[in-house]
Amino acid sequence: MGKILLGPGTWIYPQPALLVGANVNDKPNFLTVAWAGIACETPPMISIAIRHIRYTLIGIKQNMTFSVNVPATDMVRETDYCGIVSGSEVNKIKVCRFKVFYGKLGSAPLIEQCPVNLECKVVHILDLGSHSLIVGRIEETHISESCLTDGKPDIDKIKPFSYITDPDSQYQALGEVIGKAYSIGKELKGEKR
Amino acid sequence: MGKILLGPGTWIYPQPALLVGANVNDKPNFLTVAWAGIACETPPMISIAIRHIRYTLIGIKQNMTFSVNVPATDMVRETDYCGIVSGSEVNKIKVCRFKVFYGKLGSAPLIEQCPVNLECKVVHILDLGSHSLIVGRIEETHISESCLTDGKPDIDKIKPFSYITDPDSQYQALGEVIGKAYSIGKELKGEKR
Repeated sequence: MGKILLGPGTWIYPQPALLVGANVNDKPNFLTVAWAGIACETPPMISIAIRHIRYTLIGIKQNMTFSVNVPATDMVRETDYCGIVSGSEVNKIKVCRFKVFYGKLGSAPLIEQCPVNLECKVVHILDLGSHSLIVGRIEETHISESCLTDGKPDIDKIKPFSYITDPDSQYQALGEVIGKAYSIGKELKGEKR
Repeated sequence: MGKILLGPGTWIYPQPALLVGANVNDKPNFLTVAWAGIACETPPMISIAIRHIRYTLIGIKQNMTFSVNVPATDMVRETDYCGIVSGSEVNKIKVCRFKVFYGKLGSAPLIEQCPVNLECKVVHILDLGSHSLIVGRIEETHISESCLTDGKPDIDKIKPFSYITDPDSQYQALGEVIGKAYSIGKELKGEKR
């Protein structure tokens, strides 16, 4: 069949590149997270996986709130940086020149330069092994006005990017549109068998 | 600040486009899932969100196993199709001409045409509202031999694609490499403040 076994691993493609924020001891901090996914539609929820030793996790547990910020391609350096240093040692916000603001939850720091920001309240924490899986209810969404077209989010203005896992871990912008969702599949719909 | 409130919602960019498989009443079925993320590294786990009414969910609960298949860009029609019809009404495998095989778990159907296939055992099911969040332990990974370079997964050969959520729901290929992970951020590392 031409298949090779790689063993158990985390080879899912593509993964998002996101900045998760929390107040740790009342000071905002941000962590790069690629292991995240929407968890529910009604109510809207998201799950994020964070290694136990991470500084940001302390803040998530202190406040039971966190933010998810979607960086644009021009923030790739800052996004990578927030994954390779610890907020226990450096002030990532100063180094990255993030403008931090707060929304309705008051305790989930948001990055103004990121086009999209979610404010979340923790509803579950599962200890799965090396990581905690945090499930959060999305309480509010902020979007940069400059990323809207006719009042709606415009992907060509948001310019998010993807994290591609090993062996050549890299960040990739989005490319060609290859199909309209809930539409291109209809071409197969006549073919009942 | 130039931010607009959108209310609570599921605006995370980018999301993956994946095909989740399960045997329902001993017959394989596949469902398109964009709401998925890696949940743990050690042991490797993945979380996927599935609407309660979905046919595939019956099979996941029957066997407590499922698969996650990463489709390539040339499978965008099939991927969309598996999200807009139900396995309770049509035989998606026949329509899509999927070649199905099984791995070590025996009960998690895998799609040969998909470059990457994960076999998973259910470890948690959280009822979150409209969706169940299924957390699965990744027991094995299969990759098409043709997608390896020097024995390692090659993203340019795998050719995964992304699901971009509303308002213009669409599938997008990956584009330009904008930075090497765990590396490009080091440019900011000298700037301790």
